[in-house]
Amino acid sequence: MTTLYSYYRSSAAYRVRIALHLKGVAHEQVAVNLARGEQHNDAYRAHNPQGLVPMLVTDNGRQLTQSLAICEYLEERYPTPALLPDDAESRARVRALCQAIASDIHPLNNLRVLQYLVQDLEAGDDAKLAWYQHWVHRGFAALETMLTREAGSGDFCHGDTPSLADVCLVPQVFNAERFACDLSAYPRIMRIADNARALDAFQRAAPGEQPDAV
Amino acid sequence: MTTLYSYYRSSAAYRVRIALHLKGVAHEQVAVNLARGEQHNDAYRAHNPQGLVPMLVTDNGRQLTQSLAICEYLEERYPTPALLPDDAESRARVRALCQAIASDIHPLNNLRVLQYLVQDLEAGDDAKLAWYQHWVHRGFAALETMLTREAGSGDFCHGDTPSLADVCLVPQVFNAERFACDLSAYPRIMRIADNARALDAFQRAAPGEQPDAV
Repeated sequence: MTTLYSYYRSSAAYRVRIALHLKGVAHEQVAVNLARGEQHNDAYRAHNPQGLVPMLVTDNGRQLTQSLAICEYLEERYPTPALLPDDAESRARVRALCQAIASDIHPLNNLRVLQYLVQDLEAGDDAKLAWYQHWVHRGFAALETMLTREAGSGDFCHGDTPSLADVCLVPQVFNAERFACDLSAYPRIMRIADNARALDAFQRAAPGEQPDAV
Repeated sequence: MTTLYSYYRSSAAYRVRIALHLKGVAHEQVAVNLARGEQHNDAYRAHNPQGLVPMLVTDNGRQLTQSLAICEYLEERYPTPALLPDDAESRARVRALCQAIASDIHPLNNLRVLQYLVQDLEAGDDAKLAWYQHWVHRGFAALETMLTREAGSGDFCHGDTPSLADVCLVPQVFNAERFACDLSAYPRIMRIADNARALDAFQRAAPGEQPDAV
């Protein structure tokens, strides 16, 4: 059985949940409570030295880490429905949109960074929120331009069906809304996110639907 | 002609330079001077809304952004020598090592983040250096464990030939050394980096060898 180590509010785990549901891969979940620091337990770090979620244990027992690496693996192992387009240039575009979120927005705003800001740099609540919103706005402004101007965009980030870019976009929008970011300047992002969130696979992967949601 | 928009000290651009040289792809370079802020110029942003390097213009005129997306494109367009292994699980491992660097270390330490720390959070030189070294050590400690313990490691991150993981590792080691990080706790990382840096392709891609190096 495929097993996903997940936390309901982790947007990296959320990406993998969406991909699993889009591809209809049967799996079970094991909760790793980041709020309680369970990712730092020796038992978990013995499997994942980074102490991060998600981790996927495949049906043949291999432990895979890093959400985008796991998504690419799922794309190779379960090719239908495809989450990457056919031609190399379009695949590069989808992967660039993924990285613009997964490398350039999300890592700056995840739990361990916010903890460092507060504990080591003594940032107050206002400074922490300003940091969070700064990187969302900087990233989303660029994404909105890319999605508006580049050939390839459609009802979804690339064309009219979900791709790995939408798999990354929806959790990032969820995070931005959770941290009270005003997203009115990004109508294209929001239209695509709404199209995606209307789909069953995205709904089943949503944080509030997970067994460990509180 | 394939054209790379690059800055000699950008580690994301450095990754793409290594991949181009490993694959023997003829290309020219255009320098974008990040220290002078040229990435924010309207002319550059018209091509790359994120205002980041690298950008690759392919031989058929497509503009590709995001270093890992570009590296995956090069792997698909120029499959020899392969920079990803054959089986899906090993490919996932290499991609996870890439992301452990490109998502979990590098974005926290790049220029725009250091500028924010100084300008908006009023961090002093000591606090900025402590931030930089914190994320290098946290990331390298996990990488060292992965490279030591996981099946698959060899003279390089995966096996005995360079992969995309080495393409990411060498620029990150360069950055860490530039910011005076003590890397003595990471003998496996350093042995692999030294093996890679002994190769012609890595040497030709090094910051000091670029036409815009100062």
